Amino acid sequence: MEITAEHVKKLREKTGVGLMDCKEALKHSSGDMEKAIEYLREKGLAKLQKRSSRVASEGVITSYIHAGSKVGVMVEVNSETDFVAKTDDFQDFAKDVAMQITAANPLYINREDVPEEVKEKEKDLYRRQAIDSGKPEKIVDKIAEGKMEKFYQEVCLLDQSFIKNPDVTIKSLLESLVIKLGENIVIRRFARFQLGETTEE
Amino acid sequence: MEITAEHVKKLREKTGVGLMDCKEALKHSSGDMEKAIEYLREKGLAKLQKRSSRVASEGVITSYIHAGSKVGVMVEVNSETDFVAKTDDFQDFAKDVAMQITAANPLYINREDVPEEVKEKEKDLYRRQAIDSGKPEKIVDKIAEGKMEKFYQEVCLLDQSFIKNPDVTIKSLLESLVIKLGENIVIRRFARFQLGETTEE
Repeated sequence: MEITAEHVKKLREKTGVGLMDCKEALKHSSGDMEKAIEYLREKGLAKLQKRSSRVASEGVITSYIHAGSKVGVMVEVNSETDFVAKTDDFQDFAKDVAMQITAANPLYINREDVPEEVKEKEKDLYRRQAIDSGKPEKIVDKIAEGKMEKFYQEVCLLDQSFIKNPDVTIKSLLESLVIKLGENIVIRRFARFQLGETTEE
Repeated sequence: MEITAEHVKKLREKTGVGLMDCKEALKHSSGDMEKAIEYLREKGLAKLQKRSSRVASEGVITSYIHAGSKVGVMVEVNSETDFVAKTDDFQDFAKDVAMQITAANPLYINREDVPEEVKEKEKDLYRRQAIDSGKPEKIVDKIAEGKMEKFYQEVCLLDQSFIKNPDVTIKSLLESLVIKLGENIVIRRFARFQLGETTEE
C-alpha cells in the first residue's frame, strides 16, 4: 500500500508526532493507521490517545440542572462560527433546549435516530390495537401511521412541542433561529441523568 | 409458568396499572414481563414506557461547564439519604468531581470498568516496549504491571490525582467523605462533552 501525504498528515493530526516519524510509522505498518499509532506509542513518540477529539464545529455545551438536583441535562448545540455561538439568541436557544429535554424527556433528537426495530415494534402494536378495536383492515395501516406521528412527537426532541410555547415544535424554533442568525445550527447530542435511574431491567 | 404475587407487583411498578389487570396480562403472556407490558399497552391500559427509571438511591446530579462553554461535564453522585445529599460537604464533593472530570478527562470511573481487551492491548504494548528496550525477559511482566498502574492513574477517575490537591487521589477524597458523613457514597456515572469532538474515526 502506498503511503500518501494525506495519510501522513492524518497520522500527525491524530498523534501530534513529527511528519518524518509519522511517515516511518506508516511504512512500518504498511499504511495501517491503528498499527502506526501503536508503533509510535511503542517508540514513546505518541502519547496515550484518550479520545479522538477534533473540533469539527463551533457552538456551546450547556447544562440545566433542575431544582433539587434530581434531574440534569447537558446538551451540545453547534453553529458554524464562534461569533454566532456567542450571541444571546444562540445561548438562550441552547438553554431552552436543555430545559426542554429535562421536562419532556425525549429519547432521540431526530426521528431518523429511532432504531428500525423500535419503529417496527411500535407500528405493529398500533396495528394490532386497531384490529382489536374492530377497525376495517384497509384503514389499519393509516391508523398506525397516524399513531406513529404521535409517537415521534413524544420521543423525538425536534418533533416535540416547545414547553414554553406549545404552539411551536423544537424543529420550527430551530428553523427560526437558523433564519435569524443566518447559519446552520445543529442540536448535536445530549445526556439526561435522572437520580437513581436504572437503564437496565 | 406460575404467576406469583411478586411478578404482579413488579408489573404494577413498571406500568402503574391496577393489580387485577396486571394479573390478567401476565396470565395472557404466560408470565413474560415484556409481552405483558405490550398486552397492557395494546389494551390502552399502560402508557408508553419511555425509560425504566426507578429511584434506587439519593444524591445529586451536578454539572460543570468550563469557561467558554467548550467543555462540560455532568455527574451523578449517590448517597444513602437525601439528608446527606443536601450537605455542603457532599455538594462540594460532587462539584469537585465534575471539575476533575472536565480537567483530567478520565475514561472510566473504576479500573474494573476498563474493558478486558483494552487492558490486554495496553499490557501487550508495555511488554513490547520493555522487550524493545532490551530489558531481561524475567522482569518484562513486572515493568508492564508498573506501567499499567500509570495507565489506570491516567484513565480511571478514582485513581487520578485530585486536580486541586495532587497529593490525594479521588478515591481517597471519596473515602474521607464517606468517613466524615457516615454513609456510602458512590460516583455513579458521568458524561463529558467537548465541543466538536468526534467519537468515531
